[in-house]
Amino acid sequence: MEKEELQHRARHTMSHVLAAAIKSLFGDDVKFGIGPAIDNGFYYDFDMEHSLTPEDFDKIDAKMHEIVNQNLDMVKEVISREQALEMFKDQTYKVELINDLPEDAEISIYKLGDLFTDLCKGPHVENTKMLRGFAFKINRVSGAYWRGSEKNKMMQRLYVFGFLDKADLKEHLHLLEEAEKRDHRKLGKDLGIFMFNDLVGKGLPMWLPNGFLLRRKLNDYIMDKELELGYQHVMTPSLATVDLYKTSGHWDHYHEDMFPVMERDEEAYVLRPMNCPHHMMIYKNFMHSYKDLPIRIAEVANDFRFEGSGSLCGIERVRCFTQNDSHIFCRPDQIKDEVNGVIKLILDVYKDFGFENYEFRLSLRDKNNVEKYFGHDELWEKSEQALREILIERGVKFYEAEGEAAFYGPKIDVQVKSVLGHDVTLSTVQLDYQLPERFELEYVDENNQKVRPVVVHRAILGSLDRFAAFLIEETAGNFPLWLCPVHAKILPISDKFIDYCKDVQQKMRENGLAVDIDERNEKISYKIRSAISEKVPYLVIIGENEINENAISVRKRGTNETVKYSVDEFIEMLKKEIKDKK
Amino acid sequence: MEKEELQHRARHTMSHVLAAAIKSLFGDDVKFGIGPAIDNGFYYDFDMEHSLTPEDFDKIDAKMHEIVNQNLDMVKEVISREQALEMFKDQTYKVELINDLPEDAEISIYKLGDLFTDLCKGPHVENTKMLRGFAFKINRVSGAYWRGSEKNKMMQRLYVFGFLDKADLKEHLHLLEEAEKRDHRKLGKDLGIFMFNDLVGKGLPMWLPNGFLLRRKLNDYIMDKELELGYQHVMTPSLATVDLYKTSGHWDHYHEDMFPVMERDEEAYVLRPMNCPHHMMIYKNFMHSYKDLPIRIAEVANDFRFEGSGSLCGIERVRCFTQNDSHIFCRPDQIKDEVNGVIKLILDVYKDFGFENYEFRLSLRDKNNVEKYFGHDELWEKSEQALREILIERGVKFYEAEGEAAFYGPKIDVQVKSVLGHDVTLSTVQLDYQLPERFELEYVDENNQKVRPVVVHRAILGSLDRFAAFLIEETAGNFPLWLCPVHAKILPISDKFIDYCKDVQQKMRENGLAVDIDERNEKISYKIRSAISEKVPYLVIIGENEINENAISVRKRGTNETVKYSVDEFIEMLKKEIKDKK
Repeated sequence: MEKEELQHRARHTMSHVLAAAIKSLFGDDVKFGIGPAIDNGFYYDFDMEHSLTPEDFDKIDAKMHEIVNQNLDMVKEVISREQALEMFKDQTYKVELINDLPEDAEISIYKLGDLFTDLCKGPHVENTKMLRGFAFKINRVSGAYWRGSEKNKMMQRLYVFGFLDKADLKEHLHLLEEAEKRDHRKLGKDLGIFMFNDLVGKGLPMWLPNGFLLRRKLNDYIMDKELELGYQHVMTPSLATVDLYKTSGHWDHYHEDMFPVMERDEEAYVLRPMNCPHHMMIYKNFMHSYKDLPIRIAEVANDFRFEGSGSLCGIERVRCFTQNDSHIFCRPDQIKDEVNGVIKLILDVYKDFGFENYEFRLSLRDKNNVEKYFGHDELWEKSEQALREILIERGVKFYEAEGEAAFYGPKIDVQVKSVLGHDVTLSTVQLDYQLPERFELEYVDENNQKVRPVVVHRAILGSLDRFAAFLIEETAGNFPLWLCPVHAKILPISDKFIDYCKDVQQKMRENGLAVDIDERNEKISYKIRSAISEKVPYLVIIGENEINENAISVRKRGTNETVKYSVDEFIEMLKKEIKDKK
Repeated sequence: MEKEELQHRARHTMSHVLAAAIKSLFGDDVKFGIGPAIDNGFYYDFDMEHSLTPEDFDKIDAKMHEIVNQNLDMVKEVISREQALEMFKDQTYKVELINDLPEDAEISIYKLGDLFTDLCKGPHVENTKMLRGFAFKINRVSGAYWRGSEKNKMMQRLYVFGFLDKADLKEHLHLLEEAEKRDHRKLGKDLGIFMFNDLVGKGLPMWLPNGFLLRRKLNDYIMDKELELGYQHVMTPSLATVDLYKTSGHWDHYHEDMFPVMERDEEAYVLRPMNCPHHMMIYKNFMHSYKDLPIRIAEVANDFRFEGSGSLCGIERVRCFTQNDSHIFCRPDQIKDEVNGVIKLILDVYKDFGFENYEFRLSLRDKNNVEKYFGHDELWEKSEQALREILIERGVKFYEAEGEAAFYGPKIDVQVKSVLGHDVTLSTVQLDYQLPERFELEYVDENNQKVRPVVVHRAILGSLDRFAAFLIEETAGNFPLWLCPVHAKILPISDKFIDYCKDVQQKMRENGLAVDIDERNEKISYKIRSAISEKVPYLVIIGENEINENAISVRKRGTNETVKYSVDEFIEMLKKEIKDKK
């Protein structure tokens, strides 16, 4: 048997062990719900008088070990519906389950020794001695409606992490701990990056000073890079008439995800979910010759989507976000160069951020659902094939995913995996023959004919908000120096040294470094702890010794060491680190 | 008689001269409307067969001079209603006017020699010889409904500029020419700064690449300046719940100017007209001690106001704009320093932009209309007096304006006058005790008591959009070098020199300069004309001579001279000019 299957059976059996323990500890009047194996262990639902709390976990754990150690057989029996109803007559939830079984269903029970008998299809391990090495840890108790419906009674669900190998449990617990430490919602708050408030609105982040500095750096970084590559930036309004989105097709294909329409004085406006239509109008405003193409219009733009309040998550999934967007208007013979240029830019940017764990995904349309998409089969085949060839020629690893295309064309997405294993789509390149058609875009070709350009949609950092969430998780808030809102914090050992500190600060500022001084009247150990909790990359400690030696003592983030430098040396070191984007 | 009154009479008499000229040239069947003096001259409305065109202007002008030179008396006669109706029986419009006169009105006519008799109250000059020096120029003919109502017949209105002094006419024509050349809507289009499109929406500017570069420079300039002064930048969403604006009071006092509400799933959002409530929520999110104040929260923020489509004007008055906004949260004892700090910042910024023609305005509430404002009399008096004292102590020139306060408090506005004489409110500082109260903002004072901070609202560049409109008008599109999207354009005399040009470009770019090359296969004179029309500050001309001498020929905007420099000299010169903000 494969380990995966064995683990599943073991988890399932353990849920019966859990139920037996609860029965033994809390009496016969417990009503049992269901107890399946899940991804990281198992759970069981109970309806009982006693309210379970974490204080009960130790004795439940001990009882479970005791049961496992009894080497009990798990025995399956097939019984008739009448027998089942008789056997479980005091167990109302089981009776409900039995009554809901199809008439011709086989009804089976599993007996865990004579401790606990459950209505169950199995499969299970044969004897609890096979569970001796099974590693588990009771995680938490939470309320759960019977069968998931709020019309039903709320039961108590006990979650248990469980793995065949102890090492796997340990790894899982470690990952969870990391995930909690790296949770961008918690760190975003602790580090003063963003906040939310329901009076402002759900899914509408307010970026605090540290967060804004980070955003400004990201913004400048990508815009400067784009400028070098011949992109031209524009700034277009956050809303437009509904007619614009009727022209683009978003109204038909996307309006469920948009904010409600604003109507007044016979005008109807709507917040934009994306920038494509605005950029189409800019292209259309001018005459273009084939010699002018490609034209690369870029914008770091605010967009708005009415995500259901349940699906919102920190700054990862919001209702108001900022896209690092661009639309490249080109001739058909320029598609390859342009898509290649975008892929090169993506790889350059990932290198700057140190991302190494990513995959290219060729996102195709769903061929069984073609009415969701614009355009005819031949064009789709052709565009999908064009992107495929570019990926193959570039020799990057990629996989294909049907049904992931945009409604107007196929795309290449880049999936980046965070240290916690989260898969995030950061960058995208999309091929579009449809919007140029709908907006009747033109250029004059070599033969003086008016023809349609092709549009390449692309995003590199994607949504700046989601990108920031990813960065926080990836770095656990320890941003590389070039992205830090504060590069160094100066900690005077006492008030006497503040003037010297200010000189150092001034000199560093003149060199473009962001430096704060902790002038509070606190002990140096307190100041150090406080700066560490803010994840400041460099602490500069200044006291009698440093002044006498005309030096500074520096402690780098993540180390306990203190190293002496001259101010000039330190400045050069930081400037190099920022330049190298380490 | 004062010159003003004399000029008015002269203009009025000239309108009769114009009517007499028309009668003489186009016959007796002309029906005459009205012919008043206006600000810059006079007009007369005619209903006649012949359609007047600019081709008629010369002969009308000649005829008017001929009439003036006849030294005709202007004679007033008072007549009865019956006489008047009889006299004007063929002039339907005059009959209508007579019938509309109150019963007891004196009815008078003026006779211009025996050339033309008009129903008129006067006053006029006594004889046309007093009009000999009168300078006039026929401006234009346009359609005008009789009595301004579209239900009536459309007449032909002939506008004439006219002044007692020739110099005044000349000055007026010059200003008009300048105004046309400097019209930000025209220049904004010609220089690729912004565009509008009705499918996107009225009053929603789309900033084109040159405009965005200008905005980015303005944005960076003011943010860097603010950072140095201890402002902290945030970024808050463009919308919020309606409840936020109910809390702030904007809903009661301002919602007519806001976009319509967006309601969905029991949530109600609205685009924000200003940022104050968002910044209040950020302050409120944290605990504050008296030692932490002042806290200066700043944002370059998008705001939205539903201006009536008739009042929109280019980027000067739009529906979606960007404010250079800040809210300073301070203790009462810090108000003076903070307001002074803001005034100092305003003066610094104006110096950088070279603005010299401005006035401070102390904007007070309208005492006869107190229900428009929050708060009680005593507080208003106190705050108004506080601002007055700061202005007096600073010794800046200011005037007071009742009814110009915000609903939450008095303010100091700065009115800047453009070269065309337009008065624009750019900067503002406002004192606010009300929002802290409504949002229940607090800090802990020296006695460990929770008390309310004061809020100072301020904007320096004001709306970036209006500021850009002002800059365009002020500079006629000849932006100072530090704000130019392109610093220099290299014009190779022929294709042969392009490699050398690219080396120069590369070297300049490495020094942070924005340099384009005109690689088109056109004559150098064409390239120069084209770059001049784009208002590029420096043209760099490169040919055989320059390469041999390892130099470049440079032509500065607004001059005809060409000066030779080494590339290094030129780079240093430009860098200095940018640094000095000249």
